[in-house]
Amino acid sequence: MPVSQQDIALIQHLADAAGAVIRPHFRRQIAVETKSDASPVTQADEAAETAIRQLLAEHRPNDGVIGEEHASTNASAARLWVIDPIDGTRAFISGRPLFGTLIALLEDGVPVLGIIDQCIIGDRWLGVAGEPTLFNGEPTRTRACASLAEARIGTTSPHAFELADLTAFARVQQVALDVLYGGDCHNYGLVASGHLDAVVEASLKLHDWAALVPIIEGAGGAITDWEGHPLTQTSNGQVIATGDKTLVAQIAAQLKGSGA
Amino acid sequence: MPVSQQDIALIQHLADAAGAVIRPHFRRQIAVETKSDASPVTQADEAAETAIRQLLAEHRPNDGVIGEEHASTNASAARLWVIDPIDGTRAFISGRPLFGTLIALLEDGVPVLGIIDQCIIGDRWLGVAGEPTLFNGEPTRTRACASLAEARIGTTSPHAFELADLTAFARVQQVALDVLYGGDCHNYGLVASGHLDAVVEASLKLHDWAALVPIIEGAGGAITDWEGHPLTQTSNGQVIATGDKTLVAQIAAQLKGSGA
Repeated sequence: MPVSQQDIALIQHLADAAGAVIRPHFRRQIAVETKSDASPVTQADEAAETAIRQLLAEHRPNDGVIGEEHASTNASAARLWVIDPIDGTRAFISGRPLFGTLIALLEDGVPVLGIIDQCIIGDRWLGVAGEPTLFNGEPTRTRACASLAEARIGTTSPHAFELADLTAFARVQQVALDVLYGGDCHNYGLVASGHLDAVVEASLKLHDWAALVPIIEGAGGAITDWEGHPLTQTSNGQVIATGDKTLVAQIAAQLKGSGA
Repeated sequence: MPVSQQDIALIQHLADAAGAVIRPHFRRQIAVETKSDASPVTQADEAAETAIRQLLAEHRPNDGVIGEEHASTNASAARLWVIDPIDGTRAFISGRPLFGTLIALLEDGVPVLGIIDQCIIGDRWLGVAGEPTLFNGEPTRTRACASLAEARIGTTSPHAFELADLTAFARVQQVALDVLYGGDCHNYGLVASGHLDAVVEASLKLHDWAALVPIIEGAGGAITDWEGHPLTQTSNGQVIATGDKTLVAQIAAQLKGSGA
């Protein structure tokens, strides 16, 4: 069943609401707490997720909601909203306008609607299953890149890799044209719009990757785990996103250590 | 002798001119060449430097000019302009609006005037020897951070470090609160405005760091080599920039392997 126009309008309304909460805190020396996984969190993360949840409770009271900062609601529902209010909190608290709000709608476990919203510089990618991805309202496409040797790859931080992952990623980096660090979810938008060729990351949670799936796929790219398999709710957090689908197998082979 | 108002007006005019050249090429799939040091360069880099040089030839015909992309002019002059038209070309060609135009004026080898200009999102830091650093026209200051354990550190890429440098940086990272990757020259602006506590990098050339000196110092911070000594034209490219001056010795000790 195609995604409804009402859901497409709602997800943009949710991102607008999150941005309105986040913007006043940007570059304002907001207090930073450290979570149990050593990642930072602020009142802006929590308040943005609360704003989104309030709108969902009002407009979609029967849907489930999973978010990074608050407890899940009706998480076994067939329709499930997945929220990362600020992906890239490290960037946000450092005054770097490349963090993003990620929101996805899953139907029976499949992400059918997703948004990456950068509320400071106004970069917004919207993905709808079966439709072309939109960047700021206009259709956007990945670019061709048939060889890993020609590929520009983004990854946020080497510290997101476990030691074995780091060794695997080093093989990709050796073959690839270049690696750009930093960027968080914004890198996936750059892949969707044909400015980067791939992103390779690990340790991603459902709220980090769910919104990316319809965005990357609707722009002509592919998003998989490190073995080239579709991402599922039980995936281990290793993600490959490519603009040119043929890159997936080349990257997966290097990650596995079986590359040419 | 204080920096003249004419030079302060001119450097902003130069940055305006560079931005006007660069902006039309952003996210437009500009062709990328690879230089002998494996770094990328585009027509936008070259044309932006040309635009700056033309203005300098017109307004300051007797001054020397050193730039990243073109041959030096009168490089032994007492007044020397140092240009990096696009610092962070990897970010620029990947559609990430965190690259910057760096311009400095050196008098007898000392950077007395510097600008970091991000022409897409409009972040501009202006440093003048002996005066408060300005961010978008308003005075800006570093923040206090007396302990490396509380410090958020930026660095562009692990690949900018030689192996020995990487080992040294790992010691800093172990003690620091957190490390943010990516960012290029923009990170130094974030230090000047108190959003990051330090940047630690290596392999920087004169055009990469000259503009940063008056910006960091005028905001209350310090910028040195990895031994804590002032940067000079014969420095080896290793740079520490801190918002709180007391961090320099702590970072230098970790880099040397003599930290507490």
